[in-house]
Amino acid sequence: MTGFFRDIAPVTYEGADSDNPLAFRHYDPDELVMGRRMEDHLRFAVAYWHSFAWEGGDPFGGPTFQRPWYPQDDMARARDKADAAFEMFDILGQPFFCWHDADIRPEGATFAESLRNLEEITDYFAQKMEGRKVRLLWGTANMFSHRRFMAGAATNPDPDVFAWAAATVKTCMDATQKLGGQNYVLWGGREGYETLLNTDLGRELDHMGRFLSMVVDYKHKIGFEGAILVEPKPQEPSKHQYDFDVATCIGFLRKYGLENEVRLNIEQGHAILAGHSFEHELALAAAEGMLGSIDMNRNDYQSGWDTDQFPNTVPEVALAYYHVLKSGGFTTGGTNFDARLRRQSLDAQDLIAAHVGAMDVCARGLKSAAAMIGDGGLEAALADRYAGWDNPQAQAMLTSDLDTIFDRVCSGEIDPQPRSGRQEMLENYVNQFV
Amino acid sequence: MTGFFRDIAPVTYEGADSDNPLAFRHYDPDELVMGRRMEDHLRFAVAYWHSFAWEGGDPFGGPTFQRPWYPQDDMARARDKADAAFEMFDILGQPFFCWHDADIRPEGATFAESLRNLEEITDYFAQKMEGRKVRLLWGTANMFSHRRFMAGAATNPDPDVFAWAAATVKTCMDATQKLGGQNYVLWGGREGYETLLNTDLGRELDHMGRFLSMVVDYKHKIGFEGAILVEPKPQEPSKHQYDFDVATCIGFLRKYGLENEVRLNIEQGHAILAGHSFEHELALAAAEGMLGSIDMNRNDYQSGWDTDQFPNTVPEVALAYYHVLKSGGFTTGGTNFDARLRRQSLDAQDLIAAHVGAMDVCARGLKSAAAMIGDGGLEAALADRYAGWDNPQAQAMLTSDLDTIFDRVCSGEIDPQPRSGRQEMLENYVNQFV
Amino acid sequence: MTGFFRDIAPVTYEGADSDNPLAFRHYDPDELVMGRRMEDHLRFAVAYWHSFAWEGGDPFGGPTFQRPWYPQDDMARARDKADAAFEMFDILGQPFFCWHDADIRPEGATFAESLRNLEEITDYFAQKMEGRKVRLLWGTANMFSHRRFMAGAATNPDPDVFAWAAATVKTCMDATQKLGGQNYVLWGGREGYETLLNTDLGRELDHMGRFLSMVVDYKHKIGFEGAILVEPKPQEPSKHQYDFDVATCIGFLRKYGLENEVRLNIEQGHAILAGHSFEHELALAAAEGMLGSIDMNRNDYQSGWDTDQFPNTVPEVALAYYHVLKSGGFTTGGTNFDARLRRQSLDAQDLIAAHVGAMDVCARGLKSAAAMIGDGGLEAALADRYAGWDNPQAQAMLTSDLDTIFDRVCSGEIDPQPRSGRQEMLENYVNQFV
Amino acid sequence: MTGFFRDIAPVTYEGADSDNPLAFRHYDPDELVMGRRMEDHLRFAVAYWHSFAWEGGDPFGGPTFQRPWYPQDDMARARDKADAAFEMFDILGQPFFCWHDADIRPEGATFAESLRNLEEITDYFAQKMEGRKVRLLWGTANMFSHRRFMAGAATNPDPDVFAWAAATVKTCMDATQKLGGQNYVLWGGREGYETLLNTDLGRELDHMGRFLSMVVDYKHKIGFEGAILVEPKPQEPSKHQYDFDVATCIGFLRKYGLENEVRLNIEQGHAILAGHSFEHELALAAAEGMLGSIDMNRNDYQSGWDTDQFPNTVPEVALAYYHVLKSGGFTTGGTNFDARLRRQSLDAQDLIAAHVGAMDVCARGLKSAAAMIGDGGLEAALADRYAGWDNPQAQAMLTSDLDTIFDRVCSGEIDPQPRSGRQEMLENYVNQFV
Ligand SMILES: [Co+2]
Ligand SMILES: [Co+2]
Ligand SMILES: [Co+2]
Ligand SMILES: [Co+2]
Ligand SMILES: [Co+2]
Ligand SMILES: [Co+2]
Ligand SMILES: [Co+2]
Ligand SMILES: [Co+2]
Repeated sequence: MTGFFRDIAPVTYEGADSDNPLAFRHYDPDELVMGRRMEDHLRFAVAYWHSFAWEGGDPFGGPTFQRPWYPQDDMARARDKADAAFEMFDILGQPFFCWHDADIRPEGATFAESLRNLEEITDYFAQKMEGRKVRLLWGTANMFSHRRFMAGAATNPDPDVFAWAAATVKTCMDATQKLGGQNYVLWGGREGYETLLNTDLGRELDHMGRFLSMVVDYKHKIGFEGAILVEPKPQEPSKHQYDFDVATCIGFLRKYGLENEVRLNIEQGHAILAGHSFEHELALAAAEGMLGSIDMNRNDYQSGWDTDQFPNTVPEVALAYYHVLKSGGFTTGGTNFDARLRRQSLDAQDLIAAHVGAMDVCARGLKSAAAMIGDGGLEAALADRYAGWDNPQAQAMLTSDLDTIFDRVCSGEIDPQPRSGRQEMLENYVNQFV
Repeated sequence: MTGFFRDIAPVTYEGADSDNPLAFRHYDPDELVMGRRMEDHLRFAVAYWHSFAWEGGDPFGGPTFQRPWYPQDDMARARDKADAAFEMFDILGQPFFCWHDADIRPEGATFAESLRNLEEITDYFAQKMEGRKVRLLWGTANMFSHRRFMAGAATNPDPDVFAWAAATVKTCMDATQKLGGQNYVLWGGREGYETLLNTDLGRELDHMGRFLSMVVDYKHKIGFEGAILVEPKPQEPSKHQYDFDVATCIGFLRKYGLENEVRLNIEQGHAILAGHSFEHELALAAAEGMLGSIDMNRNDYQSGWDTDQFPNTVPEVALAYYHVLKSGGFTTGGTNFDARLRRQSLDAQDLIAAHVGAMDVCARGLKSAAAMIGDGGLEAALADRYAGWDNPQAQAMLTSDLDTIFDRVCSGEIDPQPRSGRQEMLENYVNQFV
Repeated sequence: MTGFFRDIAPVTYEGADSDNPLAFRHYDPDELVMGRRMEDHLRFAVAYWHSFAWEGGDPFGGPTFQRPWYPQDDMARARDKADAAFEMFDILGQPFFCWHDADIRPEGATFAESLRNLEEITDYFAQKMEGRKVRLLWGTANMFSHRRFMAGAATNPDPDVFAWAAATVKTCMDATQKLGGQNYVLWGGREGYETLLNTDLGRELDHMGRFLSMVVDYKHKIGFEGAILVEPKPQEPSKHQYDFDVATCIGFLRKYGLENEVRLNIEQGHAILAGHSFEHELALAAAEGMLGSIDMNRNDYQSGWDTDQFPNTVPEVALAYYHVLKSGGFTTGGTNFDARLRRQSLDAQDLIAAHVGAMDVCARGLKSAAAMIGDGGLEAALADRYAGWDNPQAQAMLTSDLDTIFDRVCSGEIDPQPRSGRQEMLENYVNQFV
Repeated sequence: MTGFFRDIAPVTYEGADSDNPLAFRHYDPDELVMGRRMEDHLRFAVAYWHSFAWEGGDPFGGPTFQRPWYPQDDMARARDKADAAFEMFDILGQPFFCWHDADIRPEGATFAESLRNLEEITDYFAQKMEGRKVRLLWGTANMFSHRRFMAGAATNPDPDVFAWAAATVKTCMDATQKLGGQNYVLWGGREGYETLLNTDLGRELDHMGRFLSMVVDYKHKIGFEGAILVEPKPQEPSKHQYDFDVATCIGFLRKYGLENEVRLNIEQGHAILAGHSFEHELALAAAEGMLGSIDMNRNDYQSGWDTDQFPNTVPEVALAYYHVLKSGGFTTGGTNFDARLRRQSLDAQDLIAAHVGAMDVCARGLKSAAAMIGDGGLEAALADRYAGWDNPQAQAMLTSDLDTIFDRVCSGEIDPQPRSGRQEMLENYVNQFV
């Protein structure tokens, strides 16, 4: 016991009437929703970086937290940090966690030393995972914080950085596989540019395509059975990030022939920054069969940057899970909280409470979504709205040509009459469930 | 003579020292830039809709203009409108114009009547174009204003609207070809949705893909030699528009196998709305070989909707033409002003002056861009920044694999050192030319 | 009976288990909340303009609705429109409505004729209000739609427009008083500018200050007992609107000595456009004692213009009413739905359902807010966080000076230690109630 | 000589034809513009923090720069840093600089130690300033970086932090006066909130009002002859910052009776974040007589946070100086570059070049603005547009009342006719000068 969480007991389900701030009021892992345990539906994950490595700084201020494992620059404190992390997984009954290499091990003086550190700490993780429920949802490489990556990793103008990045991903994929990780994620925070004036965009995209192809090849080579996921974000830290949004990523994957090999990890905050609703991004990925996993952390609607806050709005979360459930639910993916405490939330209790509240919000959202699916009202409305297309003549038109259709229209045979889109009624319908 | 433009004389080039508000100070059509006449580089087009059909209304107010050809609901006034339009083309020496069907002909009671109106007015246009310089840059169909299109055209839940749209496009392509149009454009203002709750996004995208394929087929069938262009816009009027931005459109084209058949018409205002700079959209399209034509009208940076203003910022315009010139310049495309007067700009003189100012701004931008290309500073900086990739070992890495690269990195052979990106110096460089 | 609402019966409260789309599931007018009937708390109002005068157009499309009272240009149809409106008030049991002059009467050929039309229709209203529950929440003048107001009303460069506006407001205040209106509202959609290049901002602000002072004088002269309210909005239709947000309006009122005479009508959508949360605007107005009334219509978070949608997110609405209740609840003000149907929502049923859903959402929000206030958790947390200031020494410091405080600090007497802001715990707390 | 700037020679004016990247092409300090030396007009200042204290980190990455004076935690290196700074002032011929306490001295273990450090380094500055041209434009206190200020300084819930802040400002005002500073600035980056749930907004505003009043009192007490300036910013780091924009600040000052004591330091990037153009903020402050000084650093239009980039767009800068010149030019204020290098701009040469380019852009903008004022076209257009108000009857109306005006309007005496606002013609006019 590190003592960091003091006397905070394991969090349990106490029901909606509980006013214990450290109890679940809605998340009961064993409750069946559409025939599946809630825990197995939601597949919650703690993000190691925000909860244990981020120190509370922002662009205008330094660290606010004071954790016993700071400064995070030696292996002993890396183990202390891991001890605290696993204690939190136990307290929350969390089934999954996620990490970047840089969150869990100190940077070494050389690549080889960094690798030794990574191997040592992942051995320590493996040991701690034995006998525990918690598993690895995904691993990833931090290729944006160190100054060597300031101009990108796979898209760096310097081929040596490309090499460094490739070698780094190899080690992180190895570590992910060693720990039984169910996915491997790439988020390209600096795969983009600060100014087009110094950027060969076409060349960089081609390099990024090649890099990702190598990642896929390596996955097959080592027999990694998890999914490879890329995570869209439009900007920040870069002015422009190549993985702008779901549509951009899908176009990229298709261009480089990777559309059957790679899926998406979609974050609410990034959707918002890109000018989309979260459900848009999910629905689009689902329609393309590329919905992999989600980062369920919200953005403040008034802030122009990624605030990575724990989710707290049930109606939004419900619509998100509605699309997840409609697409069949998670397979390798899950619900990661890529969320950090506000920098004024200093206490261990804040860290626990933030996760508890988020898990409860997700549980409410999931149950609402399942109820909507069970009731079938939205699907029925959709079927009704598009019913005209079930007509064989309508289907035939899709394989027809402009002349043929023109003849029919010009003859005066059709005169389309608008029908209500019923948006408000559908919104009211949703409000019966959230 | 309609008398609408009264005594406004043809606009001529008077040089930078002129303070005649209705003279060109920078645009000299015959001046050679990089060996090509400016007129042939810029290929300016007037947008019929904004200049002649838009009446000055906005969401909170009715028409402010009072043109002699209002109300725009009969053929006689459609001809009056055409007379004024061609007078303006003459005054400006404009080489091109663009139209939607709805701009040039009154809507008929039936499809067939609308078509007769279209044929009659385009015959009238053809007659007026004889012996004049002005040509048709592109035609397009307005499939967003009439209430039948309120839920989309190609993506409408009602197959009869799909049919109506297909037939409409056929007639507009025919009219475009009849008038020697150099491109045919599709802008899908309502190909998108107001709410996902009533939308089957995947189905609608498939319909849009089919629709565009039919358009391409028809182009080949009739031997239309111009380019088929789609115009990205992220939203407005729709909450979400499928042709969100350049990357999304390219992804869409590739999905439906149309990437060699369709190019893009890119508008500055739409780039801004989508969270991009104009030059980003141009550079991306150019990198993919899909840069077709541009709508050179700016958006107000503080307004959250498309303000479609005439361009007035030389440094921005210069960077746009820099990418156009780098990609080889326009072939079938050109510089359309999809721009409307402010609704307080009531006078005929405002309409002329707005075009004159815009053409001058573009001329300055073009000359600046050509000067930068001539000087070669940006290209040289780019070559220097990526020089490492010219190394055969670097190129070999691109067809290598993670293990091989890992071995090299882990051995300690490389230790990448950041080099300055020189953004400010490059920005200063550009400022030598604008 | 106009027949417009066909067989739609009066909407009644059926409880949360009802799945009748035209029943209240949460809004029971007579239910007591904090000792006051819900109807008296919420004071719902229908906006005549959106529900009866707006025809479904948007910047890219014409009308979609087809109401029996179109075209809205004669008095007979103005009465038909009124008949339908009052039928809707009856169906909804709506206690209030609001209007602009332009919504309810056709524009005349002269000012005097417009005035006669206004008097005639308001007489008709008065007659219909007899024996009915419905009352007038507020009246206002539409001084932004007609082309004469294209450059502003009180801030127009042309003093004749100022005069026209002043005379118009007089007639609308008279009509409001005649109908027992409880407030008079001014929203200055074109009191602002399109470009600073043609605008004398200081002069225009002074004119606006004078104008509002005359309005206040006239209120006193005629003994109008309602409140004068201004409604902030940052832009749209204008590029910049002088009544940008709550803080700007309060500063303006204070500058012109009107801070005790005028309060604010605050709209959620306008808060969002100005870069604020709705609760921010409410809390700020409340802190200044200037919270008058609300327009409870939301903005789409992904659209850069005012979408004026019916509210549908309970957690947001709950926080809004939390601030309303904390400030003592409405006196003359109420909850206006300055909301329009989506333009695809064509049917009478959509219009009823939109209001029913909105009223239910507000009812849920109000009850949640009341429960939070009853529980007292937020107030207790606030008291605890600021407890240090209850200390007399702390209070004394506020009337002290820098030197005195410096001496105390420099002596080493204090060393402030950060305390957790507990944001996530407070957000979780709120989620117990929504 | 620190050696940091190596062989970079003092930058001189070489004229527009120079292609020396480290020469002024437009900024000739001694050139007379409207009868005043350019140096005296522009009053350029270097921001110590961005140029010497910021290490190149961003929210996703650590430092990229490697300066000889890092780590910045002891007095010897603080002096090295000062040596480099003054070398840069010499190289640029910069007439002014600005600092926060935290930029120039290491934080001590106690308040008293921090103060001793501040006094020691400002003594060192004083010594270096002797015999040099460079003067202090303004000093300020950094009350946002240290964790003690995480919940605000003057608006902190903890009165001890208020005390600490008050004592800090006293020391910084003393230091500013000691160095002959011409202004004292307050930017309240954390005077605002992260969530309203834990914030008593009214109380905090009152505390901020009292705090600023004490600052003003202290200014008078010590006979500081410079101006007290506050700097608006809407958000970042805070979700909401009380000094949101110019209008908000002016309203605040008026509420607390400080409108004659305090003026504004206005930054382009902050204007943009608040949804305004820079010229709007300047024009508004000028109209109220509160335009004090400017931070001439731009924001990227596609980034939702403050990018603090060196200015590079002449047309924008020209409009800014147009308002500065129209208001009479700077008195105590000047042109501060609150601008940082991009984090990839690693070299000393980048730092010099960024300033050189910015100064040239400002010089071009100033000359353009002066030319427009000299030509008088904008003023003449304004006079013409508002000419109706020069009429005595129009003026009389402003002290009239609604009834009197109503009588005149209702009699049919006036019928206002819209006149063109001529926006495009005015924009074209401006383009003759930029
Ligand atoms: Co994020
Ligand atoms: Co994420
Ligand atoms: Co546009
Ligand atoms: Co366009
Ligand atoms: Co609104
Ligand atoms: Co409103
Ligand atoms: Co800034
Ligand atoms: Co600043």
